[in-house]
Amino acid sequence: MNKKREVFKIRGRSKSAKKAVILLSGGLDSAVTLYLAKKYGYNLYALIFNYKQRHSKEIRFAVKIAGINRIPYYVLNAALPWTQSALTKDSIKVPFNRNLSRGGIPVTYVAGRNIIFLSYAASFAESIGAKKIFIGAHIEDYSGYPDCRPQFLSAMEEAVNKGTACRGIEIAAPLIDKSKRDIIKLGVELSVPFEYTWSCYAGGKHPCGKCDSCRFRIRAFNSLGMADPLLKKPGSKNK
Amino acid sequence: MNKKREVFKIRGRSKSAKKAVILLSGGLDSAVTLYLAKKYGYNLYALIFNYKQRHSKEIRFAVKIAGINRIPYYVLNAALPWTQSALTKDSIKVPFNRNLSRGGIPVTYVAGRNIIFLSYAASFAESIGAKKIFIGAHIEDYSGYPDCRPQFLSAMEEAVNKGTACRGIEIAAPLIDKSKRDIIKLGVELSVPFEYTWSCYAGGKHPCGKCDSCRFRIRAFNSLGMADPLLKKPGSKNK
Repeated sequence: MNKKREVFKIRGRSKSAKKAVILLSGGLDSAVTLYLAKKYGYNLYALIFNYKQRHSKEIRFAVKIAGINRIPYYVLNAALPWTQSALTKDSIKVPFNRNLSRGGIPVTYVAGRNIIFLSYAASFAESIGAKKIFIGAHIEDYSGYPDCRPQFLSAMEEAVNKGTACRGIEIAAPLIDKSKRDIIKLGVELSVPFEYTWSCYAGGKHPCGKCDSCRFRIRAFNSLGMADPLLKKPGSKNK
Repeated sequence: MNKKREVFKIRGRSKSAKKAVILLSGGLDSAVTLYLAKKYGYNLYALIFNYKQRHSKEIRFAVKIAGINRIPYYVLNAALPWTQSALTKDSIKVPFNRNLSRGGIPVTYVAGRNIIFLSYAASFAESIGAKKIFIGAHIEDYSGYPDCRPQFLSAMEEAVNKGTACRGIEIAAPLIDKSKRDIIKLGVELSVPFEYTWSCYAGGKHPCGKCDSCRFRIRAFNSLGMADPLLKKPGSKNK
């Protein structure tokens, strides 16, 4: 298992600028991944997806993070009209008490989302001559989402290399082994502006603080003796 | 090699209705694949892509073929703004004299196109409970396009199964071993309405008859003692 996971560590930590594509969701994980990739000298190009998710707040936050870092980006429309997910259908309630340890697929799963996102990233990487694709997938996601698991990322890397003319593309998920707490801790070290990362399933002015995604995030910040900066100043403006 | 290719033959030729997703391009290959899949009793759902190709004629033909067969379909927008292909950039001339035997990647290659199309198909298949994805890839394509090769299709099948909650999805490319001539021959047996299939790189009222795609198609029809039905009646209406 460790050998398998090693595949998704960042290989070749040279400081020289190297082109890489990064999937930016507007969430905390992909933002930390971005700052980590930057630290290792990657010259990043971001892809942000509008898949008709429940709200566009995370897209705006992704754009903001790309902008702060002066990273060229595309916002792509990737509507998945057939999906039955709480993230795309208003009629399906977002979860408030998912028991992670029970396993199973949560209602927030969007069928094949990362397969599609990584496919676009492969096309983009091939076109610009990038050899690396960064994704913020990590252990707390792949407990429930098949398209976040190391064995999927490994198989997808193989498919991408077989299906493009550009050999040697790597899919890097440097957070793969980390918990949300560890990711935030790393983000703090990397000065990630967490106030521009969005996790709440709802798209209100401020995070609801009650949905599973909010709760996991708040709990992780609290375990580090910190407050979620999005909640710090309820009266302040979050773009 | 034969063993490898066998993977993409149609497995389980039961006449009972089984759900399958088919990628429809508006071209001849995917139309023949559709009629073959129908013959084997598959209950088809089509995906048609608008990736900002040079013309929309092939999309209209794909919709027509789906309509004739009463197959539910989606036309999805999958813009690839970074691609440098003669099929998406007017500034790149379509080829008129590509020497297939020379190998190499033709200017009509759209980076990672089938990776993206198959990813959407995987998401769709998972959502509707389909276990099969049909694609019209074949030997004369994979001489030049990496995303048409059997080794890619095999790797992609693996990735799709690792990245979805629905195990046992098969990517079927039943024409994989066939030449254009053999495909047309099969299509004739299956009563494929070739007058609603489009191959010309240009999107005029009638095929140009001169681009590589037209030439290969016309030559294949002629080798069977037939005329391309699109050219038969130059004055007739082609929708």
